[in-house]
Amino acid sequence: MISKSQLKLITSLSKKKYRDQHGFFIAEGPKVIAEFIAEGLEMQLHFTSEIVKNETSVYHQITPQELKKISNLTNPNTSLAVFKFPKQKANENKGICLVLDGIQDPGNLGTIIRLCDWFGVSQLVCSTDTVDCFNPKVVQATMGSLARLSIQYGDIEQKLSTTMLPIYGGVLEGSSVYSEKIEEDCYLVVGNEGNGISEKIIGLLTHKITIPQYGASQKTESLNVATAAAILLSEAMRPTGK
Amino acid sequence: MISKSQLKLITSLSKKKYRDQHGFFIAEGPKVIAEFIAEGLEMQLHFTSEIVKNETSVYHQITPQELKKISNLTNPNTSLAVFKFPKQKANENKGICLVLDGIQDPGNLGTIIRLCDWFGVSQLVCSTDTVDCFNPKVVQATMGSLARLSIQYGDIEQKLSTTMLPIYGGVLEGSSVYSEKIEEDCYLVVGNEGNGISEKIIGLLTHKITIPQYGASQKTESLNVATAAAILLSEAMRPTGK
Repeated sequence: MISKSQLKLITSLSKKKYRDQHGFFIAEGPKVIAEFIAEGLEMQLHFTSEIVKNETSVYHQITPQELKKISNLTNPNTSLAVFKFPKQKANENKGICLVLDGIQDPGNLGTIIRLCDWFGVSQLVCSTDTVDCFNPKVVQATMGSLARLSIQYGDIEQKLSTTMLPIYGGVLEGSSVYSEKIEEDCYLVVGNEGNGISEKIIGLLTHKITIPQYGASQKTESLNVATAAAILLSEAMRPTGK
Repeated sequence: MISKSQLKLITSLSKKKYRDQHGFFIAEGPKVIAEFIAEGLEMQLHFTSEIVKNETSVYHQITPQELKKISNLTNPNTSLAVFKFPKQKANENKGICLVLDGIQDPGNLGTIIRLCDWFGVSQLVCSTDTVDCFNPKVVQATMGSLARLSIQYGDIEQKLSTTMLPIYGGVLEGSSVYSEKIEEDCYLVVGNEGNGISEKIIGLLTHKITIPQYGASQKTESLNVATAAAILLSEAMRPTGK
């Protein structure tokens, strides 16, 4: 059974405004839910169409029809849970801090979060116009990675204008990423899918870096932002010297 | 005006079966259409909600409502065109030939095609269970890149079992991509989003390569296939020695 107030809460959580207000987000499917539990996130509600032996204030058995009603997925899985936002981890000023300037696509953000987790980049700073990391599509794509990273939203201009660390940015005309040494402790900025890094942030970069284009045609306008971030992070982390 | 037979044709082209039967695919939006024209593709039909001075057998003016009816986009642009498949380019056995083993997601395929174009990789070979490259979502994501590459679908097992070239494959347990030298002329295989490279193809690899995982957690199960392909291609193309 799902109560009216629970239904209202869950429906509201598809909007960022209400996620922020409650401090809750939704995860779907046993595997994704298990990963968030394993990361120590506090589960508020758990609805499943599988058999629940002991219903509690958290665990509720529902019908597949009820699940379909509350699910954000085209093909709902067997379960949906409401989690409390993870505790904000302290910013360390150590290692690479990846900065996202206006990333719009939830798929790109999800891919970038998994990428950070893979390369041990634990700090992600997003401009306020970057898509919300608790957007259901991002949550489903990143799974546990989302809970392992420190993700902050805020005024990136202010943040970058007060740091003493080098600030690298992926642009179309800069020095080759294959010859530029990326410092161990630094900021690395990637920009919006259509427009790249915004002008006010370009002015703050201490190093403009580019992924060289090969081949005869050189007509591709740009790389997808997640693949560009992959190559930049790989170059920053690769163990051998340039 | 859009005729009944034109409407029937366009609707049918959202399915691979009919795209193959007619040898046609759909592109939407002035920018995407212009890129395919610039690549020399033969345009069969062009519908636009903008003013058309001289209607021909190719150019037709339609209303925004008619466009909405034939568009595959959530927010239809001003125009939709039907193109003939690009002519198959001859396979050169030179440079890197990227092999896709069961890529399911149109977004991933689109990103990989742009990536190939960026790095001058002109040959892409796809297993028959890889998503169709003329799928509307792929077309919109790749734009002109789609016409610049040679993309073949077929029995990759047969192809790889008869080549004398080295065959590299991205796997979870292999030698580090940062220490393995990737030969200039070779096959490079990446696998399905969930299951990686299939068993029968794994057996044909001459070199298993891995993108090392960094950081404390090492809990990320895998990288997104397009970001993995990005890092592998970047490593293969980077100019300096290892």
